[in-house]
Amino acid sequence: MKIGLIQMDVVDDKKENIKKAKDMILEAHDQGAEIIMLPEMFNTPYQNDKFSSYAETETGETVEFIKSTAKELKILLIGGSIPEKSDGKIYNTCFIANESGKIIGKHRKIHLFDIDVKDGITFFESDTLSPGESTTVIDTSFGKIGIAICYDIRFPELFRKMVLEGAKYFFIPAAFNTVTGPAHWEILTRTRALDNQVFLAIVSPARSEILKYKAYGHSLVTSPWGAVLSELDEKESVLIVDINSEEIDRIREELPVLKHRKSNIY
Amino acid sequence: MKIGLIQMDVVDDKKENIKKAKDMILEAHDQGAEIIMLPEMFNTPYQNDKFSSYAETETGETVEFIKSTAKELKILLIGGSIPEKSDGKIYNTCFIANESGKIIGKHRKIHLFDIDVKDGITFFESDTLSPGESTTVIDTSFGKIGIAICYDIRFPELFRKMVLEGAKYFFIPAAFNTVTGPAHWEILTRTRALDNQVFLAIVSPARSEILKYKAYGHSLVTSPWGAVLSELDEKESVLIVDINSEEIDRIREELPVLKHRKSNIY
Repeated sequence: MKIGLIQMDVVDDKKENIKKAKDMILEAHDQGAEIIMLPEMFNTPYQNDKFSSYAETETGETVEFIKSTAKELKILLIGGSIPEKSDGKIYNTCFIANESGKIIGKHRKIHLFDIDVKDGITFFESDTLSPGESTTVIDTSFGKIGIAICYDIRFPELFRKMVLEGAKYFFIPAAFNTVTGPAHWEILTRTRALDNQVFLAIVSPARSEILKYKAYGHSLVTSPWGAVLSELDEKESVLIVDINSEEIDRIREELPVLKHRKSNIY
Repeated sequence: MKIGLIQMDVVDDKKENIKKAKDMILEAHDQGAEIIMLPEMFNTPYQNDKFSSYAETETGETVEFIKSTAKELKILLIGGSIPEKSDGKIYNTCFIANESGKIIGKHRKIHLFDIDVKDGITFFESDTLSPGESTTVIDTSFGKIGIAICYDIRFPELFRKMVLEGAKYFFIPAAFNTVTGPAHWEILTRTRALDNQVFLAIVSPARSEILKYKAYGHSLVTSPWGAVLSELDEKESVLIVDINSEEIDRIREELPVLKHRKSNIY
């Protein structure tokens, strides 16, 4: 089972972003990827002053692109995220299209990125975005997958809930920065995978030389044992990772933490 | 606030182990440690065929040693763990004594270490031990501390529960091995601290050249930012770490994940 991660260099032009996404998806498909994931906010710069003008409804051109590309290539396409307009609000939303080009689920980022690290990074998504209100576990041809977006990864309860609902894979469009990335990206991704004994794939935009927000990059896939299977640096690239889904059951048998939970205590 | 971790080389002789613990506690105290922690099963080899003969009740000589040493040195002593005999069962129990020599809490390991990793490590604590049934958060002169023992660390819900009960420090007597240690010790400790924005101290026995069970060692302290402040190798040693408790509130303000939890969703 081959996963393709699209670490693309996002620019301040929606059509260019969609074109770049398409080119890189084709490259991943050529290399055999069957599940392909785009990064968080792949059609827009990651800036509060851009989200509104780039936003579209679920019948907009970006969602159409996700559907048609999935159908054309017969892939499961996890469409990163885009600013989604709905009921006068804007959400940070991931649309997922199956091999027939049908939207089989969407995840609205639950936890908005509102942080203020002195001499580090300040960002308040809630200035422009509204939060999602539910977890997202989807049936696919590869089994059940759980979706989270970026800052959602900081909440272990969310991942535990998804795994108890049957998720065997976590897919996470993200855009960490150069402050929290080096400090937290790897331990969070490895530990969420290890605690829940799933494969976890996370994809970031490449680090832009032009845009204000400096994404961390370092898209990666971890195993259910919490090991990094493959990881990019900060530059634009496609990452292809071949995973063996039998590893999930083997590790759940050898180190049965999910059976050892004491739900009467917590 | 100075923490002292006692990474001692445990042997197959209870009196020797207690004497070694005392000597190393004195060394940590001489270096200014105010909170001192012993490792998991510090008075016995970590072997199922030893736990029963080394076990004692809470009026036994090891608990008396913990109380009298805490009182003599006016320290908060987190007494690692010992096999505790009670009601015909044996528990893996941590006794905590305050500066007056009073036992102010005890934690019985909740999650027993029953794993069978092929070509790796096989151990079934439940062959001889019984599990604890409750979480342990204790008021101390340094604030609230949460206690867990070794395999308990694999359960993120336990740590979240302790932090929601007010814990600002996690203290963990442990004895990982040379298979799971290199793979998981650092990411688990760093992520539990980061997710809950607390200081976390974990202490292991030194790696024995004689006993069957090969402990990982690598006792360490992490910050609420998920950084390792200081870490030992596998050899016998005392680790002294000076921490600034103001860091907890600062990080909880800059990156307010505990406020961002959505308890209506999970």
